[in-house]
Formats: sequence, C-alpha cells, structure tokens
Amino acid sequence: MLNEFQIWQENHPPLNLISITDLDPTGVNALFSLAKKMKEGTKRGQEAWQFPRRAAVAMIFEKPSLRTRTTFEVGMYQMGGHAVYLTQQDIQMGKREAVMDVARNLGRWLSAIFARVYHHQVLFELAQHTGVPIVNALSDLEHPCQALADLMTIQEWRGEGKLELAWIGDGNNVCHSYLLLGALLGHTMRIATPPAYAPNPEIVVAAQKLARASGSQILLTHSPTEAVENADAVYTDVWVSMGMETEREIRMRAFRPFQLNEKLLARAKKEAIALHCLPARRGEEITDEVMDGPQSAIWDQAENRLHTQKALFALMIEEFVATTGKTTG
Amino acid sequence: MLNEFQIWQENHPPLNLISITDLDPTGVNALFSLAKKMKEGTKRGQEAWQFPRRAAVAMIFEKPSLRTRTTFEVGMYQMGGHAVYLTQQDIQMGKREAVMDVARNLGRWLSAIFARVYHHQVLFELAQHTGVPIVNALSDLEHPCQALADLMTIQEWRGEGKLELAWIGDGNNVCHSYLLLGALLGHTMRIATPPAYAPNPEIVVAAQKLARASGSQILLTHSPTEAVENADAVYTDVWVSMGMETEREIRMRAFRPFQLNEKLLARAKKEAIALHCLPARRGEEITDEVMDGPQSAIWDQAENRLHTQKALFALMIEEFVATTGKTTG
Amino acid sequence: MLNEFQIWQENHPPLNLISITDLDPTGVNALFSLAKKMKEGTKRGQEAWQFPRRAAVAMIFEKPSLRTRTTFEVGMYQMGGHAVYLTQQDIQMGKREAVMDVARNLGRWLSAIFARVYHHQVLFELAQHTGVPIVNALSDLEHPCQALADLMTIQEWRGEGKLELAWIGDGNNVCHSYLLLGALLGHTMRIATPPAYAPNPEIVVAAQKLARASGSQILLTHSPTEAVENADAVYTDVWVSMGMETEREIRMRAFRPFQLNEKLLARAKKEAIALHCLPARRGEEITDEVMDGPQSAIWDQAENRLHTQKALFALMIEEFVATTGKTTG
Repeated sequence: MLNEFQIWQENHPPLNLISITDLDPTGVNALFSLAKKMKEGTKRGQEAWQFPRRAAVAMIFEKPSLRTRTTFEVGMYQMGGHAVYLTQQDIQMGKREAVMDVARNLGRWLSAIFARVYHHQVLFELAQHTGVPIVNALSDLEHPCQALADLMTIQEWRGEGKLELAWIGDGNNVCHSYLLLGALLGHTMRIATPPAYAPNPEIVVAAQKLARASGSQILLTHSPTEAVENADAVYTDVWVSMGMETEREIRMRAFRPFQLNEKLLARAKKEAIALHCLPARRGEEITDEVMDGPQSAIWDQAENRLHTQKALFALMIEEFVATTGKTTG
Repeated sequence: MLNEFQIWQENHPPLNLISITDLDPTGVNALFSLAKKMKEGTKRGQEAWQFPRRAAVAMIFEKPSLRTRTTFEVGMYQMGGHAVYLTQQDIQMGKREAVMDVARNLGRWLSAIFARVYHHQVLFELAQHTGVPIVNALSDLEHPCQALADLMTIQEWRGEGKLELAWIGDGNNVCHSYLLLGALLGHTMRIATPPAYAPNPEIVVAAQKLARASGSQILLTHSPTEAVENADAVYTDVWVSMGMETEREIRMRAFRPFQLNEKLLARAKKEAIALHCLPARRGEEITDEVMDGPQSAIWDQAENRLHTQKALFALMIEEFVATTGKTTG
Repeated sequence: MLNEFQIWQENHPPLNLISITDLDPTGVNALFSLAKKMKEGTKRGQEAWQFPRRAAVAMIFEKPSLRTRTTFEVGMYQMGGHAVYLTQQDIQMGKREAVMDVARNLGRWLSAIFARVYHHQVLFELAQHTGVPIVNALSDLEHPCQALADLMTIQEWRGEGKLELAWIGDGNNVCHSYLLLGALLGHTMRIATPPAYAPNPEIVVAAQKLARASGSQILLTHSPTEAVENADAVYTDVWVSMGMETEREIRMRAFRPFQLNEKLLARAKKEAIALHCLPARRGEEITDEVMDGPQSAIWDQAENRLHTQKALFALMIEEFVATTGKTTG
C-alpha cells in the first residue's frame, strides 16, 4: 500500500467530498502526493495504483460536462475501475424518481457517487440516503474537484511555499472552492469581482475562518489590479454560463473591466501563471494571448483534473471499504 | 466451472429470455443459486465468476432506465465483460434502420443483446435475425429480469417453501412476469386490480397452465384486501407511468383504493414483505411508511437486479458459446 | 510484437487518418493482415493482441452512429483499452467550447481521438491542436474507416488480385473513400451517379493520381449498367440521409434508375458481391433480394468495421507512443 493511503486513513478523513472544507491540509497534501505519483505512472504507461477489487462508481450529470466526465471515466478505467455515466435524461432525478430513492438504489450497486447537480442541497440528500461516498462534481455553490486540480497546478508551477493567488471576475462556485482551498493551505487570496457578483457571504466567512487557522489573508475587492498586483497566479472563469443567456448584456457590461489580458497579467509577478477552469469564451473573460501564452498553466490545470480525481477516489473508496467492511452501501 | 452451469446446460436452456416462460423451475433454481454466490462474492470484493474471454453485449434502451441499465452495465464489468449502451436517440431502431438490420449488425460484434422496447414484438424480430441471445429488458408485455430479482428477494426473506404472493394495482408488464414466475415456482398468486386494468388474458391463461403443472393457484380479484389477506409478500407498481400523463386523472381515480399503505399491509402475514419494482410515486401507489418501514424488501429487490442479471447473462452466454462454438452470431 | 507493427513503423506511417490518402499500399496491407489475425482471434475467443498499457481514446459523435460507435467501443474493450463516448449534446464542440480547446483538453488525457464531424475541416483543427492521433469517423468529405472495411471484405470474397469495383448512386463521402482506396490498391473503379451527384472533383483528381501510380483506371459515368458491367463488387448507399428530408423528392427522382436490384446485379460478374455501408432504406437504393441474397457481403462488411478499426488503432497508438515516448499529447 502506498504511504498516502495510511496518512489519509489516520487523519479522520471525511466520508463525502461535498465542500472543499470537508478536507484538511494533511489530507490534501496526501492527495497531491498520490496524484503526483499517478501522473508520473500514467505518463510512462504504468499506472501507480490499481483497485484491489472491481470498483464501479456512478457519475450523475444534471448538466453537460467535458472535463469532469472524461477525466473521471478515464481515471476510473486507468485504475481498473468503471464509471457508469448517468445523464439527467437517463434518470430524471427528482422527477421520474425521488432523489432519496435514486440514492438508495445506487448505493446498493456501487462504491461511490460522483454528482453534478443544479442545487447543492441535492448532494446532501444523496449523502443522507446512499450509504456510499458522495463527491461533488459541480454544484451551484462549489466545485471542489476543480480546486484540487487548481492548487496542484499552482504547486507544480510556483512551488510549495505560501503564495498570493488572485481571482478575477465572477464570484461563482469555482471561485468559492478556490478561495476555500487556498485559505486552507495558507495562501493569500485576493478576489476581485464586480459589486453584484461577489462570492457568497457564507463561503467568505468559512474561508476567513480557514485563513485564521492557516495564517493566511483574504482580500475582497472590486479592483482587478488590486487583486492581481504581485500575484503568483491569476484565475478567471466565464462571465456568461450556459443558461444565463438572458442576462448576457447586463453581465457583459459589469464584467468588461475584469478581462484577463496581457496588460492585467503584467501587473502580477513576472513568473505568475494564468488559470482558467474552462470552457472559456476567448476574447471575453480571457484573451487568446494569455490563454495561449507562456504564462498559461491552463492545459496543465485541465490535465490535473485527471490525476487529482484519481487520487481522491482511490483514497475515498479504500477508506470506505476499510472502515465499513463493505464494497457498497 | 461452477455446478450451476452444468445444470443449466443439461436442462435444455432457451436461447433467448423474452418471456419468463422461456425458463423452467430447474433453470430458475440454478440461476438463483449462481446469483447467490455472485452476491456473496461481490460483497466481499471477490467476484465468484469471470468470463473466460472478452464478452461484449449491447443494451438497447428505447425508454430511459436507472436500475436495469446501471445493474447491467455494472454486472457485465464485474464479470470482466462490457455492455455498450445504445439509446433510441443513438440508433433510432425502426426509423433510421430496420429492426432486422440492427439485429444482424449487432449479432456480428456481440455475444448477446439486452433490449428495452416499446413493443414486445420487436424482441422476436431481433431474435429472428441476430443469431445471438436476446434478453427482454422490459417490453409492454413483460419484464422477466425484474421477476427474477423479485422471486430471489422473496426467497431470501421468506424462505424456499410455497408462499402466498399478492399484487396490488395495475395488471401491467411487471405484474405479468411476476404472476408467471410465481406460478412456475408453485406459489399461490393473488392479483388485485381495478376492473379495467386486469392482466392480459393470454398471460393469465399461460400462468394458469403453469399453476396446474406446479400445483399452485391463481386468484384474480378487484379487492385489494382479498389479495393481501394472509399474503407473504405484497407487490405494487406505479399507477401512471411516463407517457401516460393524459390518462392521469382517470387512472388516479381507479387506483386510489389500491394504495399499498400500512393499513393494507397489516392484513397480510405479520412477516410479510412489501415489494415495488421502482421508480415509485411516494404517496400514490405506496406510502412512505411502507417503503421505508421494516417490512420493505424494496432495496434488496433493487439490489438483486444486479445479481440475477449477472447469473442470467453468465449462463446464457456460456451456453451460447458452448453449443454454437461461436462467440458472436 | 506482431510483424505488422514493424512493417507499419518502418513505413513512415501518418500521425492521423483524416483522408484515406494518408495511407499507402504497404500500410494498408499490414493493416489488413493484422485485422485478419484479430478477426480469427476474436472468433475463437482469444484476442490476437492487447495494448501493453491502459489506453483510452475519445470518440466524438456530432451525428448518431450504430456501426462506427459500437465497433469502436467493443474493439477498444477487446484490446484492453477504453473508448469514452462524447456526443454533441455532451460537449457542444464549437458552441460551448472552441474546437481547438476541446482538442487540447482531450490530448492531455487520451491516446487518440476518433471523431465524426459535420465539417471535414474540423478534423484538421482537432489535429492541429491535440498532439495525439486523430482518426476520421465520418465527415462530409470522407469515411476512411468504412473504406478499410469495404476493401478487406472485397479481398475476403474476391481474392487479392486486381478487380473491377463499381459504385452506384450518390457520389458522397463513402464513395470518396472507396474510390480513393480502390485506386490506391490498383483496382479499376467505376462510379455511376446522376449528373448532379458526381463525386467531389478534388477527390476525383486525387484518385486519378493514385490510379496512375498503381496502374489502375477510373471511370465516371451516369450509366449504372456501364459501371456494373463485369464488376467484381457493386456498392451503393442511401439516397436521402438524415437531415436531407427537404430534398427528398428531388433526390428520389434523380436516383431512381440507380437502384441496386437483382436485374442490375445480374450484369456484374456471376461471383460479384453487393456492398452497402448501412443503414439502408430497403426498397429504395437496394432491394431486399440483393441485401438478403447470396451475393450480399453486406453483413461481413459491417463485421469488418470491428476488425479493421482495431488494427488501425493498435497500429496508430503504438506508433505514436513509440515515436513520441508519450502516452498522451
């Protein structure tokens, strides 16, 4: 057994990963260490770790996905497992069948559930009834698996020390998990959003609590330059997501000063990296020059979705089996 | 080779499972025995049986599915096989391409076809042209794989003796296969439906014939209490399926007296179990109290979809390869 | 290592298969030889070749598919690999996300991309940005994987010599790849289409160049009988594809004289075979008598999609890993 599994298991790991706050720094570091080994293994064509038994997991997608779904399906396969892809069209969770009943059924056949949902609350409902680990694959409130890939990427490019990390644009679900994980790991977090698009106040309070514990600082601002000044990483995300088309004009006007372009990036450290969780609207929230430029860590960030999710599910499923003595719920 | 395979092969097994009447009691008992071993194996993380070669199967779903599809995909994976998920949107069987041509194509690449269709007749058309085993994954007339899980669950909870089994509500496809398999195995079957929703008369005739052979009895009634009185198991299903929304009010009125609630269940044996094939409309055909109560075997029933389908496909595919000397059609 | 891999690798193989012209006769023959071994192995239940590492590939389908998708997914599984099925609904390539960004992402996780696209140009855009092999799974211009199965089937039925091959009907993407591969391999190609539906002139020029090199001949005609006279194989395809319904009447009128029926087939050699890439509109471009008759090689042709694609991806992915030292882009 790789050492990371021991550290994880001795560290009171959570049953579920619904919010990034379910983790602590020791767990995150074990996960990054395992993800790094898995990344090296895959690149040489020799997987670092395999499930010691057949392991099947459900992935529920109420909304479409490229990265989350592909990396998860491929990652499970690479570890000898299997992911069943369930779309909203297939299962109509909450319409054709109550969420609690879907949860109970899936728990009977599978070792975990990875779910992308419109409403964060649905993740708790799944967790309450399924008996197996639930992992958030994006909700309206958080995107913890994205944050794990983000911080791993930052560590690869900028080292393991305490850094200054900026977010520019919408204080959305991706921002929330990034803010929380940055604070948890002791980084200074500077979040610049238009006034009407600040992060959720409860998330900010949670992040401030984590920052006090880790000795880091959080700055909320409406000035992109203030956030970016001297930053080690500058992160942005789309301004107008799928389904928001009616608000398009209002949003475009509010976000225009928050574009991540070369001029803005030049105010960060010379070695600063640009991040984006994708999909991007090139020419809106980010320019081609930044996305395709030498400071772009965006493709590594996308790649690391694979390695971090593999590490996460390996750790969580093994812990579940070890503590419950069961392979399903 | 596990003993169940020998019993199956010596017992003139059917090429296809389109109706539950394709099976006989010896075959069903071998299947249950194998399913039980598979269930125990999966729970300890060590599969009881693996395909001796790569085995790929198509699953065609003209209508959406949670249980049938997930358990089948997971079960094939657990045995080292692979299930290809084909939706109506993907293949448009009968529109984009004649059913017979889809059948012939799939038979060239795969070892079996598992198909959920609107029209039972389509299963015969597939069987006629494909050259590999066809298994009914739900048609308008029958749901044999459901019945296998139902009777296995009843046996787990209530033992292997002859029992009194009730059905309350719509005399639909699930009712048909339950009635037929119950009669085949020698159980007393009592079916209570509103007058306009009785089971298909041809199915009833077939069940009566099976009942005469097994020494069991069949009662059709419009009185829920008459069916439930002294029963070992009480089974119900949704009143208004997807696509029946226009008939909703008429159906609701007809079925209201057939709700499976605590009061009705109390008229069955004290140890009686409640069954439902799911998805359920909680508060309509079944109450929360029954579904989540101590007599509910509903989640075991859902779980057993996995184990019975694994046993079924293991037996059918091995028999096909053994008798034809071929791995595809 | 099987000998075919050496021949392939010593023969300056292409990184991508976007057009059938990316291949040369030596490569095609190595591929057919490997496909034949794979076919024999699968039929005896013992695969001739397995990936020496986990190998995952994306399959993008902007349009629905039965044969291409099923054979690819099954083939990857049979070789120990895995194919991730991405529909347009899932990824909305070019709408939700720029093609170049989809390409870069997928290249980070996967060993190849198999893509069915509306616009041929998209394949080049994918190839430019992904860093892993791109294979055309059908575009508006070509269908090279179909042509590989077609010519393998012709060789199985009619031997390895130079033949006279006819095409009757629409000068479409399937016709293009068939024409090109036939010319590449030295067969005489006779293409009969209505005047308004002749093959693309650039494809014809490319085919004529290949014909000069291989010593073969190309005839374009509007007379079905002229094309079929003395042919070894007669190939047709649907007249009205999905999405062309508005042109239906015009097309039906133009194509009616091009039906592949027994009378037309009788003008070919006595041992001639009938081909169709499927799906077919029975009674339109081809009659039941031909499709289900003794000269129909149509089902073998469909089966060979599996074996040729397996050989192709085995060769291409191994070559990619060998030359780049990488397992992904």
